[in-house]
Amino acid sequence: LIVSLTTEAEPAVVERALAGLGLWVRRLEADGRVQFYVEPGSARVNAAEVSRVPGVAWLAAEPSPHPLVDAQGPAVRVDDVSIGGDAALVLLAGPCSVESETQIHGIAERLAGFGVEFLRGGAFKTRTSPYSFQGHGEPALGWLRDAADAAGMKVVTEVLAPAQAEVVARHADLIQIGSRNMQNSALLAAASARGRPILLKRGMASSLEEWLLAGEYCLLHGAPAVVFCERGIRSFDPHTRNLLDLGAVALLAHVYGLPVVVDPSHATGRRDLLLPLSRAAVAAGAAGVMVETHPSPADSASDAAQALPLDEFGRLAHAIRSGPTAAAVDVD
Amino acid sequence: LIVSLTTEAEPAVVERALAGLGLWVRRLEADGRVQFYVEPGSARVNAAEVSRVPGVAWLAAEPSPHPLVDAQGPAVRVDDVSIGGDAALVLLAGPCSVESETQIHGIAERLAGFGVEFLRGGAFKTRTSPYSFQGHGEPALGWLRDAADAAGMKVVTEVLAPAQAEVVARHADLIQIGSRNMQNSALLAAASARGRPILLKRGMASSLEEWLLAGEYCLLHGAPAVVFCERGIRSFDPHTRNLLDLGAVALLAHVYGLPVVVDPSHATGRRDLLLPLSRAAVAAGAAGVMVETHPSPADSASDAAQALPLDEFGRLAHAIRSGPTAAAVDVD
Amino acid sequence: LIVSLTTEAEPAVVERALAGLGLWVRRLEADGRVQFYVEPGSARVNAAEVSRVPGVAWLAAEPSPHPLVDAQGPAVRVDDVSIGGDAALVLLAGPCSVESETQIHGIAERLAGFGVEFLRGGAFKTRTSPYSFQGHGEPALGWLRDAADAAGMKVVTEVLAPAQAEVVARHADLIQIGSRNMQNSALLAAASARGRPILLKRGMASSLEEWLLAGEYCLLHGAPAVVFCERGIRSFDPHTRNLLDLGAVALLAHVYGLPVVVDPSHATGRRDLLLPLSRAAVAAGAAGVMVETHPSPADSASDAAQALPLDEFGRLAHAIRSGPTAAAVDVD
Amino acid sequence: LIVSLTTEAEPAVVERALAGLGLWVRRLEADGRVQFYVEPGSARVNAAEVSRVPGVAWLAAEPSPHPLVDAQGPAVRVDDVSIGGDAALVLLAGPCSVESETQIHGIAERLAGFGVEFLRGGAFKTRTSPYSFQGHGEPALGWLRDAADAAGMKVVTEVLAPAQAEVVARHADLIQIGSRNMQNSALLAAASARGRPILLKRGMASSLEEWLLAGEYCLLHGAPAVVFCERGIRSFDPHTRNLLDLGAVALLAHVYGLPVVVDPSHATGRRDLLLPLSRAAVAAGAAGVMVETHPSPADSASDAAQALPLDEFGRLAHAIRSGPTAAAVDVD
Repeated sequence: LIVSLTTEAEPAVVERALAGLGLWVRRLEADGRVQFYVEPGSARVNAAEVSRVPGVAWLAAEPSPHPLVDAQGPAVRVDDVSIGGDAALVLLAGPCSVESETQIHGIAERLAGFGVEFLRGGAFKTRTSPYSFQGHGEPALGWLRDAADAAGMKVVTEVLAPAQAEVVARHADLIQIGSRNMQNSALLAAASARGRPILLKRGMASSLEEWLLAGEYCLLHGAPAVVFCERGIRSFDPHTRNLLDLGAVALLAHVYGLPVVVDPSHATGRRDLLLPLSRAAVAAGAAGVMVETHPSPADSASDAAQALPLDEFGRLAHAIRSGPTAAAVDVD
Repeated sequence: LIVSLTTEAEPAVVERALAGLGLWVRRLEADGRVQFYVEPGSARVNAAEVSRVPGVAWLAAEPSPHPLVDAQGPAVRVDDVSIGGDAALVLLAGPCSVESETQIHGIAERLAGFGVEFLRGGAFKTRTSPYSFQGHGEPALGWLRDAADAAGMKVVTEVLAPAQAEVVARHADLIQIGSRNMQNSALLAAASARGRPILLKRGMASSLEEWLLAGEYCLLHGAPAVVFCERGIRSFDPHTRNLLDLGAVALLAHVYGLPVVVDPSHATGRRDLLLPLSRAAVAAGAAGVMVETHPSPADSASDAAQALPLDEFGRLAHAIRSGPTAAAVDVD
Repeated sequence: LIVSLTTEAEPAVVERALAGLGLWVRRLEADGRVQFYVEPGSARVNAAEVSRVPGVAWLAAEPSPHPLVDAQGPAVRVDDVSIGGDAALVLLAGPCSVESETQIHGIAERLAGFGVEFLRGGAFKTRTSPYSFQGHGEPALGWLRDAADAAGMKVVTEVLAPAQAEVVARHADLIQIGSRNMQNSALLAAASARGRPILLKRGMASSLEEWLLAGEYCLLHGAPAVVFCERGIRSFDPHTRNLLDLGAVALLAHVYGLPVVVDPSHATGRRDLLLPLSRAAVAAGAAGVMVETHPSPADSASDAAQALPLDEFGRLAHAIRSGPTAAAVDVD
Repeated sequence: LIVSLTTEAEPAVVERALAGLGLWVRRLEADGRVQFYVEPGSARVNAAEVSRVPGVAWLAAEPSPHPLVDAQGPAVRVDDVSIGGDAALVLLAGPCSVESETQIHGIAERLAGFGVEFLRGGAFKTRTSPYSFQGHGEPALGWLRDAADAAGMKVVTEVLAPAQAEVVARHADLIQIGSRNMQNSALLAAASARGRPILLKRGMASSLEEWLLAGEYCLLHGAPAVVFCERGIRSFDPHTRNLLDLGAVALLAHVYGLPVVVDPSHATGRRDLLLPLSRAAVAAGAAGVMVETHPSPADSASDAAQALPLDEFGRLAHAIRSGPTAAAVDVD
């Protein structure tokens, strides 16, 4: 926002009034004329309210760079499940990778019993090292779909390459774009063209604006909806794998009015922080929580240390649901 | 942790078992002999449990660098108010700076009515610019003490220099060390020697270990107790002033068993995020919430944009207290 | 490195000796037995030298996760041009995007006159916003190739999707993987399978290990060589677009023995820092410098503010090649 | 900068012209009227040049928040030694802490032989842990002064508390403020009141503006001059202790016209990067280089791993002074 003043305005008075509204104001001047620049990160204040400040002549505003995202709204439907808005908290859970048909069927059955709506599991895995297990590929997609169907669940799984978009879209209800690919524009376009909603994980060090613009790519290329997923950003502290940014969750949920899901497993890499941070995520505005779980982490093909044993997950799911609700919270 | 194996152990089996416990394991080897290094940031696992893994011969552990902090315990008493442990959520609130005797009395009265336990307010202000208002100094300490006494509240206020330690300790129940001074060892020593508990704000980019070691300075130099305060760390995203790190709060509260307070005002600089992030802080394990508030932010001598008007603060206080509780949450 | 001691060793003496070699040592113990863990980021010290420290019984070391990268060596040939090792400094320059056949021919001619070895230019552009210019695609590749051939230069250009790998490889001598795609494993594999060397830009917040592992993907999937390109990482300071990490350049060049190129244009986004930072890059160990330049930045289809006008580039190229000095350097 | 347009201006044309000057431009509008905001981090462009762009009606600019720093100039005199401007490169070297009278005399003699101008050494040490060696205090100041005098060198040493300012100023030619205290306003004021120039280390995660404002504190409180010292900022990568920010050095030296010194010892913690990064620092614009050195690092009372043995330092000093080249440089 650039605020221009009337000729009779007292700049210091206007400046105080703008700050009093909660705005971060920078004062610029030339030859006795003063203008104010309101930093984009300020608390959202209604432009009409700013215009009414005595001494304000006119306002120039930056057009939003992501009109489609702005227009989406807070709730998204994935088949018959709602995420965000007034919907109940959604759980998304499953193993890091789909290891076998038997494994995923067993997991799905247990998770359904815990009330989990979405079965997650990697068929195509992207790994930091080329020597790590890269997933069982297309067959695993079929196992995942069948296991979810048998248990009455939805499927969320990641797509890694444009050429996989068609087959992933055939098996998944919600297509995941991983952190490493948040700005992979070719993949965003290909995945979005399939008519399925997208679960868009935040990049390792993505700004909020970059994340929203990646969502804009999805909607512009045909995705019916985007659910954002915060999974921790890069940090200097080795006590957690990544740094969970719940301020970004609160911003998306309460200021931008968008559905957000939180993945505390990747955010921390630590089982002992999953419950407090899941609850905190919900309190901050998360519409869902996604957790990695495995019947026997020691036998997991990947990410063993961060997977929660299934029975512990059951207690976690119960505790999250019995805790604070996701109901919209606003001060005004 | 360094894990050494028995001669007959199968390294791959032990490695899987360690990962299955939730540990981040690095494998090192020489001439066919294998050892594992467990990264310090892994989920806390009982050493006895690790020792029982078949094939483990012995463990070497790093001694804690902060034994006094480890011994403190989760709850701290400040006069007759408890912070942390089983105590009810504590609120700390007040203006950025103590502007006048009248102002602070009026604020204290209102805050007491909202059930706020601690009156905060700056007498000595540290500012990024030398041209910004630096506080009214010693007289303001007296006004603050009197206002708190009249309203039946405790006082928390910041000390900036060793020479101020005596006078601040005479007026405050809880002495605040600000972010910019978290590693100011001379100040930590002087402030701690006065026998008052310390509220230790985290530095702008301090690691968890640096923060705990700063607490160790305090306890070693005579502070009866330390309450940690997370107030946001440096971030690349301009949408919030700083980045609130609730993972650190969960770690301190649930893994280290320490009392932590969260300051969402400085963490975000935005009024519109205070409620969701206050609730999230409590859900993550915060024992208290500290908020900047002012009867008329437009007239505030400092930090106008981030201060919440008093009446809005009243609604916030009510909403935080009626929300999720601070009860300890553990997965085990 | 885990250092185990002989039974008669005096741990404190060994610890001092290890630190004296430049190692970051952590001491772990149990029941009077001591072991040391040497942090991976320590200065590289020959293992034999560590073994000779009196009191050291044996060492366990972590196997390198990127053996192919380790084996590559410091110099790479791209057709008849060498990058790294004893080769002369290489310049890579050109416009952000290839805008027309005429434009790129004109630029190539000028750049060849300045002694630039590689013509750069985007045919497929990845942009933060879906509404920004995305490049002229395949036709632009032909213009770029022809212009480079006419001027006796090599071509470096970016590939964005696996499906483009074949056509890009047909036109480029060196295939660029951009920052946003550094961990796009499907793209790394597809681009590397074409038998061309890869220019691998570092991700926005990639650790050194992640960058080297991305290089390992390339070599494992068939790339004959990888040249690393530092282009700035995410930073909290708005004075430069990104933060140029010349420590990483020195590490790759002097500790890992790998060819690195530096892109100060994207690192800073500021023309007024190009010369000092180009010189600093070379002093730190860069084998080449890549700069965005345009005949008339005001008419550039993208990144106008960071492109250097061609004539200023000529002076920059001359100054970089004539060798760094401490004297004040300004482009104007 | 806020750019307002004439009524007949074509906004798109003006926008291109501004970007063509190297400015980062944001476009804001209302009811068909357009204004541009130029981000503060853009390349420095003369305001007169911007005003001459056709269609520009007037400019509003932010007044500098640090006028005294702006007025200081690029060169500073410390007694008879010049730092910055046209002066020759200055070397500052010595042990982490002053361990004994004999030690520091021996070191000073060797360093003088290598042409080092400033002897550094800690008398009052600030340490992350309260159990680490905190320095020999006031007696060590005397040893340091005598050793420097005997060798014909200047003294630079750190002050930790306002109460030490007088005694430190009595013994030092240049008073160092450490990273942990960059925003310790009470210390800045006390140290600056003694009439000695200040060596101001950058805080762990300080923005450029915060650093310059800390310098403003010094000049406002009486320091005759401020030399800035970049020593690495917080980073997510464990391969170096901190992240050396040579972009900030180039900005201070070439855009702000200020004297900057670089401390590669603390920036990296690694001896094997000292030479390439020292050379890079000089190429980026550093007026001096500060290095930790010790006759026998294994016997150092602190920071053993990062201290360079004295004889290796001699070779480093020679190599830095003989000027950077792109040739591979190794200390061994």
